Amino acid sequence: MNKFSIGVDLGGTNLRIAAVDDQGQLVEKVTLGTKVSLGRDHVIDDMCDAIQRLSEKFKDSAPLLGIGIGVPGIIDKETGLLRESPNLPGWADYPVRAEIERRLKTIVILENDANVAALGEQWLGAAKDYSDIAMVTLGTGVGGGIVIGGEIFRGANGMAGEIGHCTVEPDGHPCGCGNIGCIEQYASAKAVVRMAREAIARNGASALARAAGSGAEFSAQSIYNLAIQGDEDARRVFRYMGRCLGILLATLVNSLNLPIYVIGGGVSSAWDAFAPAVFDELRRRALVYAATAPPDPAATHEGASAHVKTGSGHKTIITRALLGSDAGLYGAARLPVIEAR
Amino acid sequence: MNKFSIGVDLGGTNLRIAAVDDQGQLVEKVTLGTKVSLGRDHVIDDMCDAIQRLSEKFKDSAPLLGIGIGVPGIIDKETGLLRESPNLPGWADYPVRAEIERRLKTIVILENDANVAALGEQWLGAAKDYSDIAMVTLGTGVGGGIVIGGEIFRGANGMAGEIGHCTVEPDGHPCGCGNIGCIEQYASAKAVVRMAREAIARNGASALARAAGSGAEFSAQSIYNLAIQGDEDARRVFRYMGRCLGILLATLVNSLNLPIYVIGGGVSSAWDAFAPAVFDELRRRALVYAATAPPDPAATHEGASAHVKTGSGHKTIITRALLGSDAGLYGAARLPVIEAR
Repeated sequence: MNKFSIGVDLGGTNLRIAAVDDQGQLVEKVTLGTKVSLGRDHVIDDMCDAIQRLSEKFKDSAPLLGIGIGVPGIIDKETGLLRESPNLPGWADYPVRAEIERRLKTIVILENDANVAALGEQWLGAAKDYSDIAMVTLGTGVGGGIVIGGEIFRGANGMAGEIGHCTVEPDGHPCGCGNIGCIEQYASAKAVVRMAREAIARNGASALARAAGSGAEFSAQSIYNLAIQGDEDARRVFRYMGRCLGILLATLVNSLNLPIYVIGGGVSSAWDAFAPAVFDELRRRALVYAATAPPDPAATHEGASAHVKTGSGHKTIITRALLGSDAGLYGAARLPVIEAR
Repeated sequence: MNKFSIGVDLGGTNLRIAAVDDQGQLVEKVTLGTKVSLGRDHVIDDMCDAIQRLSEKFKDSAPLLGIGIGVPGIIDKETGLLRESPNLPGWADYPVRAEIERRLKTIVILENDANVAALGEQWLGAAKDYSDIAMVTLGTGVGGGIVIGGEIFRGANGMAGEIGHCTVEPDGHPCGCGNIGCIEQYASAKAVVRMAREAIARNGASALARAAGSGAEFSAQSIYNLAIQGDEDARRVFRYMGRCLGILLATLVNSLNLPIYVIGGGVSSAWDAFAPAVFDELRRRALVYAATAPPDPAATHEGASAHVKTGSGHKTIITRALLGSDAGLYGAARLPVIEAR
C-alpha cells in the first residue's frame, strides 16, 4: 500500500477500528464491544490501544495519513466537545478529541457518525460515481449526512444532515425531541415496532399479534419477515413508513436536486417492503424527481442497477446503501485522506 | 466605476434591465412592461434593445463583464432552453439563450429568477455578511434559491431550491403540480386569498367577508391590512401560513444548518403577521434551530438587527429580504462577476 489511515466507528454497541489504505482497501479491522457501562475512560482506553496497535503494525510499510473517528452525536468542530449523544450516556460536553489526542499524542479528526457513513458510501459504496450525495440512515433512530464535492457538508455548526427530526406528519406522533411527527417516529426501527403495536391495538392484527406475543424479540426484522410472507398488516406498516420517508425525500430532492440519495441503516434491509411507497410519494410530491426520474423506477430498486443514466439530463437516483455497517468505518478512514489533499 | 455588468429581470409583468458596477453600485436601471401578449420575439427585442443601449452608453467608461438574465422557470443550463415557465406562456422549450446571443452577438448567462434573487440578497442584501444562504420567495407562487460559497447551488439539473412544491401538509390542499399540501398552497399570495375565502365560507368571518365583497381587490395585502387592524380571522390566516412556512424552514434548517435564511417576495411584507408563528414552529420543530437560535428571537424579526452573534457557535438567522424586487436584478448582474473570477 501507498499510504494508510485509521478509521474508527464508535457506536453504542460496537467499537470498530480499521486500517484502510488511501485507495479504500481494507488492511485490517478490529471489532470490540463498546463497554459503555464501564465508563468513557475505559472505552477511550480500548479505542486508543487498538489504534496504537494498528498504527505500530503498519507504520513501517506505509506512512499513516491520520486518524478519523465517527461518533454518534453532535460534535463541536472548534472545541472537539461531544455536545449530545443519546447512545453514549455520560459523554455529553466531554472533550473527546482532546482526551484521545492526549493519549495518542497525535491529531485526530472527529465527525458525526451519520456524516461519516455518507462519506463512506460516497467514497466506496452506492454513490461512488458521484461527488454530491445525501444519505439517510434508518437505524434505532434516523440520521443523515450530505456530501458535496466529495466532502462532508457540515453547515454553520456541523449539524447539517440532522434530518431525523424533520417533520413529515405535522400533527403526528410526539417525538422525544419535543416536536411532533418527526421522520424518526415513522422510519426508525423503534417506529416500525411502535406502528405494528398500534396496528395490533387498533384491529387485533392477528399475525403481528402472534409475533408480538411469541416470546421472541418483536423487532423491525420480525415485522419485515411477516411483510414478505404477505401479511397485509405488516405490509401496511412498511407502506406507511415508505410514505413518510418519501415525503422527506421529496423535500430533499426538490431542495437539493442531488444526483443520488442513499438509504442505509439496519431498517433499509426492509427495502422491498417500503421502497414502492417511497417512489410513489416521490413521483407525486417531488417536482424535481418527476422531471428527472430514471425511465424505469424499478431499475433503482436495487443498488446493483442504480447507475442508470439516460438522455442528456442527470437522473435522480434513490438507492440502497452498499457498505452496511462498514460505511462509517470507511468514511472515518476517509477523513484524513481528504484533510491531506 | 471599475467594471460593470448588465443584469436583467425578466418577469411575467415587468422587464427590468440595469447596469451595475462590480461593487454592486447601480449605474442605470430601465423598467419596461413585459409585453407577454405580443409574443416572445417582441419581448426579446425589447430586452436586447435595452441591453444594447446600456452597453453602448457605458462601454467607454468601463469594461463590460457580461450579461446575466433572471428568468421565471427552469432552465436547462447545458442547452439554454427554458424548460417550463408558467408566467411566460409559449416560451417552454424555447432556446432563449441562443436567441438572445444571436441578437446581441455575445454570450449571456441565464439563471432561474428565484436563484438570482437569492444571489442578490447574498451579494448586497439581508445576507451580505454570509456566503451560504437560502432564500424563500413568497410571491404569486413560492420559489427558492440556495447560495453556497457565494455561488448559486444549482444541483445536478439546475433545479436545486425548487422548494415551492415541498409538502408541508401531507393530506392538505391539492396543488396544480399534482401533489397535495405543497408550501405554495399555504404561503403564496394566492394561497393567502384562498385561505381567507375558506374562512369566510366556514364561519362568515365578517371583516374578511366585507373586504371580499367590497369591490376592491381582495388580495394578500388587503387581508394583511385587516390582520394588523386586529381582525382575528385575518390574523388566523397568517398564523396558519406561518405555521406551514415554519414546517418547511425547520426541515431546511435541520438539513442544511445554514447561517441565514432570507424570506422575500411580495407576501413577505406581511412579516409581522406570520413571523411569530414561523419562529414558534422553528423552536419546536427544528432541533438545529433550537440549538443555534439567537438569544432573543424578537431580534431577528427585523432585517436591521438580523446579524446577532453571541457565544462561540454560529446563530441561525431567519430574516426578511432587504432588496425587494431589485434582488433579482442585482443577482443577475452578479452572475458575470462570478463567472469572471
